[in-house]
Amino acid sequence: MQVQGKNYRTIWLSENGNYVNIIDQRKIPFEFVIEQIKSCQEMAIAIKDMHLRGAGLIGAAAGFGMYLAVKESAVWTDIEQAAMQLKATRPTAVNLAYAVDLQLKRLKVVGEEQRCNLAKEIAITIADEDAAKCKQIGIHGVKLIEDLSAAKNGEIVNVLTHCNAGWLAFVDYGSALSPIYEAQKRGIAIHVYVDETRPRNQGARLTAWELEQQGIPHTIIADNVGGHLMQHDMVDMVIVGADRVAANGDVANKIGTYLKALAANDNQIPFYVAFPSTTRDMSIADGVANIEIEKRSGEEVRKIEGLYQDEIVEVQLCPTNSPAVNYGFDVTPSRLITAWITEDGVV
Amino acid sequence: MQVQGKNYRTIWLSENGNYVNIIDQRKIPFEFVIEQIKSCQEMAIAIKDMHLRGAGLIGAAAGFGMYLAVKESAVWTDIEQAAMQLKATRPTAVNLAYAVDLQLKRLKVVGEEQRCNLAKEIAITIADEDAAKCKQIGIHGVKLIEDLSAAKNGEIVNVLTHCNAGWLAFVDYGSALSPIYEAQKRGIAIHVYVDETRPRNQGARLTAWELEQQGIPHTIIADNVGGHLMQHDMVDMVIVGADRVAANGDVANKIGTYLKALAANDNQIPFYVAFPSTTRDMSIADGVANIEIEKRSGEEVRKIEGLYQDEIVEVQLCPTNSPAVNYGFDVTPSRLITAWITEDGVV
Repeated sequence: MQVQGKNYRTIWLSENGNYVNIIDQRKIPFEFVIEQIKSCQEMAIAIKDMHLRGAGLIGAAAGFGMYLAVKESAVWTDIEQAAMQLKATRPTAVNLAYAVDLQLKRLKVVGEEQRCNLAKEIAITIADEDAAKCKQIGIHGVKLIEDLSAAKNGEIVNVLTHCNAGWLAFVDYGSALSPIYEAQKRGIAIHVYVDETRPRNQGARLTAWELEQQGIPHTIIADNVGGHLMQHDMVDMVIVGADRVAANGDVANKIGTYLKALAANDNQIPFYVAFPSTTRDMSIADGVANIEIEKRSGEEVRKIEGLYQDEIVEVQLCPTNSPAVNYGFDVTPSRLITAWITEDGVV
Repeated sequence: MQVQGKNYRTIWLSENGNYVNIIDQRKIPFEFVIEQIKSCQEMAIAIKDMHLRGAGLIGAAAGFGMYLAVKESAVWTDIEQAAMQLKATRPTAVNLAYAVDLQLKRLKVVGEEQRCNLAKEIAITIADEDAAKCKQIGIHGVKLIEDLSAAKNGEIVNVLTHCNAGWLAFVDYGSALSPIYEAQKRGIAIHVYVDETRPRNQGARLTAWELEQQGIPHTIIADNVGGHLMQHDMVDMVIVGADRVAANGDVANKIGTYLKALAANDNQIPFYVAFPSTTRDMSIADGVANIEIEKRSGEEVRKIEGLYQDEIVEVQLCPTNSPAVNYGFDVTPSRLITAWITEDGVV
């Protein structure tokens, strides 16, 4: 997608194949920094320290990380060690394990001299497939926006989204934002309410930046505002991404998603969840009961990062001795979800 | 209530009656500053620039502002001018207009030489009555906590609250927090989840500070978290304050209250609203349809204040060119409210 009028993916191989470029997402929206990743070690650090994040992107990064490892040494024990190093960075990331395991499986059965080229090919394929799936999500999802636009006689369709499920979380296009980008391409009048998404503010920082760079009209709101907007007909649809989708359709997504689903339901507004089909976890029967929710550091609530005198600094928001608790996700029961959008269609 | 182990109200007359003390709430929780207000002019600035806020406290401040005016000049035209000045500071504050009008009505019918003493008496009475009403809210509301405590065999009762409806919003005790303070006094084991309450973070700043100073166990959470906690039986009751209560029981309160009421309803958790009966506005039949919602500056969303290197600074949270919209309140429909708590009892 567009950054400063130029087309980018979140991750791409250098022309000579010697290193991998990533966007350092820690600085967005205040700075746009492209980082050159030259070794598997550097990629592991980039994943662990969240220079990049998002299910699809982490998978692609792991694929490229394996390529960088094999480029250094095609000896099997070295490859296995690199795989372990990458897997240890974000132990719960499904796409990461998938990408590493795919590389291992395919590399194992070829000779050392073929491994470097093969690893490169596989890494590129993983990235391309992620982008292709996200594009398909947009093509399926845009029909829902087109219908709303038609029902409103072409008036602006107002969409509310939570957190960042845009191209920055994938290789390109995104999940929840992909239908919005497709709508823009088709000339549909659209406007996006962006939940700031405390505590890490991925909405205010990443989603707002994506939309701004793409030239899509948007408005940032505090996470508290969505209910009021829906009560007063200011939102036509809600669309969010997903971190994990259970067999019964329950959706684990960024903390606060459940509250927006309740508000949508209370006001008869459609609530959509968009994700690549790999996000589905059929081993979990009941999402609300069984999906384990990551507890993160309370410091993310007690403090926040922002721009002060042209520097990115962290400020304290509360009394020094008041503790905070920080759950990363919540689970929205399937009864509150209007439809699920994947690369295969709308269910 | 307690600050650094000493008992305070939010506003009180100096011993010699020459000035009025207030707590400068703009610095809380980072600094505890007592400000001396020496004239009606200074009080008007303190109200307008939000050195103090909260329905009950603004009323008391206006009462004392009138006293300071009369102390300077007991001439009727001067008194009328002071009244106008005070009323212009926060035009929608019901308690402010009430306090000023009460002073005018009573002062008009006595001679100039009696006015100063009378104005002082009235100001003290307004403050005392506010404190007494809040204390009564606590005494009625604590029964609900006692019942939950008994049902849990004395285990900790977990209460969730939104925004600040504590003693800092009144003269003493508060509305939503008054039953909590009363529970502490009665030795009931209690713990409070404090919504940080973006954008102005009155929860993380004021409510957390009140509870910390009072020694009440509490945990700050992002506004997104309450739904998850309720889904997993971690909240026994929700209690919030109110800015305006319509004839049909609909409640206007800080933005985001409606989302918590939806979550409480979805999980069969009691949702209480506590307020002095003066907050009821019988002229509004239907709250959701008719209460006008204040739109504040989007800069409050785009930026936030916090402590950085021992200084209170404001940091930017989002892209420079992304707009934000900022509604101050939302309206919770009465169907989601379990009971209303006033100084007259629980309804």
